[in-house]
Amino acid sequence: MIGRLNHVAIAVPDLAAASAQYRDALGAKVSEPVEEPDHGVTVVFVELPNTKIELLEPLGEASPIAKFLEKSPAGGIHHVCYEVDDIGDAAARLQAKGARVLGDGEPKIGAHGKPVLFLHPKDFNGTLIELEQASAVMAP
Amino acid sequence: MIGRLNHVAIAVPDLAAASAQYRDALGAKVSEPVEEPDHGVTVVFVELPNTKIELLEPLGEASPIAKFLEKSPAGGIHHVCYEVDDIGDAAARLQAKGARVLGDGEPKIGAHGKPVLFLHPKDFNGTLIELEQASAVMAP
Repeated sequence: MIGRLNHVAIAVPDLAAASAQYRDALGAKVSEPVEEPDHGVTVVFVELPNTKIELLEPLGEASPIAKFLEKSPAGGIHHVCYEVDDIGDAAARLQAKGARVLGDGEPKIGAHGKPVLFLHPKDFNGTLIELEQASAVMAP
Repeated sequence: MIGRLNHVAIAVPDLAAASAQYRDALGAKVSEPVEEPDHGVTVVFVELPNTKIELLEPLGEASPIAKFLEKSPAGGIHHVCYEVDDIGDAAARLQAKGARVLGDGEPKIGAHGKPVLFLHPKDFNGTLIELEQASAVMAP
């Protein structure tokens, strides 16, 4: 079921500093910061040949990564995102296996404009897993 | 400088259970467990189309992931590994930028038989970064 690793997301307290590190010390290609107010984050994309790293800084009052940074002020790896062909099928299969989908259990439109869901980290070895449908159109 | 994301390593308390989850719930292709006594871990490789996930369980008395699992008994994302062309050049560049290489600062032969080094997570947003030379032969 799971396909490509779409990205690894790293929460950081200072996006400009983290971005400069990836560019200057690690010599990676980094994007300009992109504000995603609907998702409560500002993102810098680190482009690697086979996948990408997303550096996330909280944006706004209700950022989903604020609590993570309270616990880990220096930052840390926040989640991994795997691609799936059909997010509805994926949700049904996972729920049948007893895995909990965060929120109301329904896929949402994610930061890339594609349907996503998040699995409860307690069900997956302390790892927050995002699933993203590779195509933007959700099956009816 | 950094190239492909070679792998994401996830420390798990129960490798058989984690492996079954990735196979059965997430539908991924997983390897048999591989014991790496020299590195203090038993590993299951989750093969994705563009990279791999390494599920790590402690092996032996002095496992490098034992402390991590003491702090996070359910498991969690342990490190990310980026490929570099020349590990010696990478170490020199990073140290010139003030980043600390763990241990004595010298690259070691890693679990894949290739030269690796680890960067101090305090220097990289709480993220433990492994660098692995893509070719097995170290420059003199």
